Amino acid sequence: MSDRYVVGVDYGTLSGRALVVRVSDGAEVGTAVHEYRHGVMDGVLAASGTPLPPDWALQDPDDYRDVLRYAVPAALAAAGVDPADVIGIGTDFTACTVLPALADGTPLCELPELRHRPHAWVKLWKHHAAQPHADRINALAHERGEPWIGRYGGKISAEWQYAKGLQLLEEDPEVYDRAERWIEAADWIIWQLCGVETRNVCTAGYKGIFQDGSYPSKDYLAALNPGFAGFVAKLDGPLLPLGGRAGSLTAEAAAWTGLPEGIAVAVGNVDAHVTAAAAQALDPGRLVAIMGTSTCHVVNGTVPAEVAGMCGVVDGGISPGAWGYEAGQSGVGDIFGWYVDHAAPAGFDSHERLSELAAAQPVGGHGLIALDWWNGNRSLLVNHDLSGLIVGLTLATRPADVYRALLESTAYGTRMIIEAFAAAGVPVTELVVAGGLTTNRLLMQIYADVTDRPLSIIGSAQGPALGSAIHAAVAAGAYTDVHEASEAMGRVQRGVYQPDPDRARAYDALYAEYRTLHDHFGRGANDVMSRLRAIRNAAQLGSADEPTVALGVAA
Amino acid sequence: MSDRYVVGVDYGTLSGRALVVRVSDGAEVGTAVHEYRHGVMDGVLAASGTPLPPDWALQDPDDYRDVLRYAVPAALAAAGVDPADVIGIGTDFTACTVLPALADGTPLCELPELRHRPHAWVKLWKHHAAQPHADRINALAHERGEPWIGRYGGKISAEWQYAKGLQLLEEDPEVYDRAERWIEAADWIIWQLCGVETRNVCTAGYKGIFQDGSYPSKDYLAALNPGFAGFVAKLDGPLLPLGGRAGSLTAEAAAWTGLPEGIAVAVGNVDAHVTAAAAQALDPGRLVAIMGTSTCHVVNGTVPAEVAGMCGVVDGGISPGAWGYEAGQSGVGDIFGWYVDHAAPAGFDSHERLSELAAAQPVGGHGLIALDWWNGNRSLLVNHDLSGLIVGLTLATRPADVYRALLESTAYGTRMIIEAFAAAGVPVTELVVAGGLTTNRLLMQIYADVTDRPLSIIGSAQGPALGSAIHAAVAAGAYTDVHEASEAMGRVQRGVYQPDPDRARAYDALYAEYRTLHDHFGRGANDVMSRLRAIRNAAQLGSADEPTVALGVAA
Repeated sequence: MSDRYVVGVDYGTLSGRALVVRVSDGAEVGTAVHEYRHGVMDGVLAASGTPLPPDWALQDPDDYRDVLRYAVPAALAAAGVDPADVIGIGTDFTACTVLPALADGTPLCELPELRHRPHAWVKLWKHHAAQPHADRINALAHERGEPWIGRYGGKISAEWQYAKGLQLLEEDPEVYDRAERWIEAADWIIWQLCGVETRNVCTAGYKGIFQDGSYPSKDYLAALNPGFAGFVAKLDGPLLPLGGRAGSLTAEAAAWTGLPEGIAVAVGNVDAHVTAAAAQALDPGRLVAIMGTSTCHVVNGTVPAEVAGMCGVVDGGISPGAWGYEAGQSGVGDIFGWYVDHAAPAGFDSHERLSELAAAQPVGGHGLIALDWWNGNRSLLVNHDLSGLIVGLTLATRPADVYRALLESTAYGTRMIIEAFAAAGVPVTELVVAGGLTTNRLLMQIYADVTDRPLSIIGSAQGPALGSAIHAAVAAGAYTDVHEASEAMGRVQRGVYQPDPDRARAYDALYAEYRTLHDHFGRGANDVMSRLRAIRNAAQLGSADEPTVALGVAA
Repeated sequence: MSDRYVVGVDYGTLSGRALVVRVSDGAEVGTAVHEYRHGVMDGVLAASGTPLPPDWALQDPDDYRDVLRYAVPAALAAAGVDPADVIGIGTDFTACTVLPALADGTPLCELPELRHRPHAWVKLWKHHAAQPHADRINALAHERGEPWIGRYGGKISAEWQYAKGLQLLEEDPEVYDRAERWIEAADWIIWQLCGVETRNVCTAGYKGIFQDGSYPSKDYLAALNPGFAGFVAKLDGPLLPLGGRAGSLTAEAAAWTGLPEGIAVAVGNVDAHVTAAAAQALDPGRLVAIMGTSTCHVVNGTVPAEVAGMCGVVDGGISPGAWGYEAGQSGVGDIFGWYVDHAAPAGFDSHERLSELAAAQPVGGHGLIALDWWNGNRSLLVNHDLSGLIVGLTLATRPADVYRALLESTAYGTRMIIEAFAAAGVPVTELVVAGGLTTNRLLMQIYADVTDRPLSIIGSAQGPALGSAIHAAVAAGAYTDVHEASEAMGRVQRGVYQPDPDRARAYDALYAEYRTLHDHFGRGANDVMSRLRAIRNAAQLGSADEPTVALGVAA
């Protein structure tokens, strides 16, 4: 086993990464990245120059194949590994990123007659134009008391399969009819690798509303739109557990990748969810926070619980044999980035400088509380019209004060999620952090202090790709299950940050203030944030006609 | 009259300005400024090196005489005016700025045996160490139902004569006993000029609780502290109306100033209040806003009304024959200055650049609301523990958005004051603006739009000094009263900014949001601001002992 390898491929928003990993111990021996040629199409459709409406975000599925063609061979070359020693390949993807395809897996956008139709292309996770459809999906589900709605904290997201599918039906019914399959890119790429269509329980559960053995009923779907009644037929397929073997590498995919034909191809999976295996955090109570521009939280629990405002709970959604819970914060690193790029004075516009100054402060020394909703709130409020707030500003407030308050605000947001889990009977005993923000030591210590929990750090800078490789090793039969593979191949430094009891106590008082503000502005007592956004949008739309103050300043 | 002149002297916080003005038309023919040698003593007492406690702010009264010795002759020289043509001198002062003196006017700090005693010196208006005394004064006044408390919006300020006097009694009873007089610097400087002690109705009313012919009762004062029962005897004296003649210039003062002995010396006055005359704004309904680092509002009314949260209402407090109302905003220009100096990114750190960008925006286009309490709230909430707030921040928020929201927040604060006046039966029909911020045209237009009132601009850059000169002309008998002198010598450009109906309507919606936030955070529903300040102060005090996060950022 010491000279066998697997390849993990992590499909991100702008690029894909391939990582060659040793099966015996998870050593990362070579990696390569391939940027998608078409990136995110949110202005015009590249193939036809067709302009796209606001909030659209499309991708070209052939860019995903290019990752197999370029990044995998490059990673193998970088590793200096004999491809004959590679026994499996696994992937993870952004989600819900979804596309319409023919029954043979051909993306509709690759049919010449449909290339100019925006709805024929891949809808990326952050395609946000289906909010009206999501609103109807939610209203009807509550009206009819659909049993599954509680599993999603009471709200189906506009990002998911049904909202995007309903938008497709209603805006381009011809393309909808042509779509024999409506498939997550996570599963489509596996089809490309092994020639067999499969579905993974993770996206089927979190994004496809598959609960307790079934999808939403035909009745419910017909009530949304009679033409939607048969939607599930486009989704349904062999559902496989995470770490399962979807099939064997085809000759065509072997040619793309340089890997041996016939090796194991693991079932599709999602970036955040595979990271739990990479961080040895599959045990119940270990909350994995993948912290980058935004944060995704996943944690296993022993029982199914309905947690208000969570993204979802899925049986086997993180690993077989447990209930996988998912939550998220829509703005984290991008709030800190916004501050440095657009709000910090000269001399203070670097994370290093601000963190150094902020680290010297006692807890509460800046006198500020912020609500971390610069990019809306994904959990627990599930409201993208919310916005950021800072209170406590004085003439003595300095940049590091604001910066520290922003770091803390995201930690309070994580604590809200942890407490909601705990209140619903899903205890969280430890934070396990992955992602780019793990390098900010002040931020990590603040999270340990604010949550009063020990904080572990993943031992890999390529958590998702390592997690995919772990799943490949299981699919290839090198380990009996994901747990065993995670123990052998995953890496984590346990308890790197310990909560300080005094600071944790001091944060309790500040967190209580955060919570009060959170509930006041987030739960309807004062919907000023939504109103300000509506006023802003109307003002910006109408600004061509409206009288502005076109005045300079007198000398 | 065309070749006769008066001198106005404006005593500010850091310097005094003399202005030579032609009596016939108010033409400003020469000016000079003298900086106080000792400035504001808030760290140590200069004369002895004695350290001062937090929140103290003292001045040296001889610095005030130096303004007479240096600035007045320099202004005369600059004017090229024959001193023999000067017929009077008038002054205005910060208030409540107050000092203990002997019966002959000698400041106690000029007695060799008391020079090292901090309590023997002038307590500047912003000496804020008597808050506990003010709290007791207010609690007892409400408990006993003292008739005068409603005239001050229900609260006597820690800055005023009684709080500072009570602090003196309780912290240095020996100096208190030696103080035969407790006198506003506004009146003390007149004593220096004419050798006669007088008191002006303005500071006696606004700062000395003189209402309906009397000061607070001996009973009330004794209940505060038995030793305080005789306090009023240190204040009482000949009370003279504004524009009255306090006396004639002494030989000594003539020698200091270079002015003729025996010319008229006007009764003492306050900077904001004399400005109303300079801006031809003595008619009821014309609200004068003196806008600088902070804003002071004065407006005449025809009836006495009790307006909650106002600084005070005084019979003849602005001009004889009307009820003068005063209100204020503790932070205005200094909030904008804070933003430019400490919060604006490189390339955006100038008022000119930010105003230019902000002026191009439609009303509401930034999606923000701020509460303008960076320096607390003087009216209507009278609470210096309040702090600033911004809501509506997103990843798209840019510097000019925040800057414009800050400008607007202070306009909303002014509108709150205007509406409180109107609700109490004191209508405000027009804004008349004086002070350094009049040069910001965007700010002025925002004030016109937010308040939906025409906005006039004072025609002098030296409003207070011009106002003092107007009072000197009345005291000298050149005009029959302040109204007549104001008409002849004051200057204003009427209706320079007109409200735009569309923008005014758009601001109504935003102001409603401001008002809701104002009341929520200012009137007890959520006292988070006070708590954050208490936490901050405790954290900063205790930070030597407390464990801070002494961590850098990993590379």
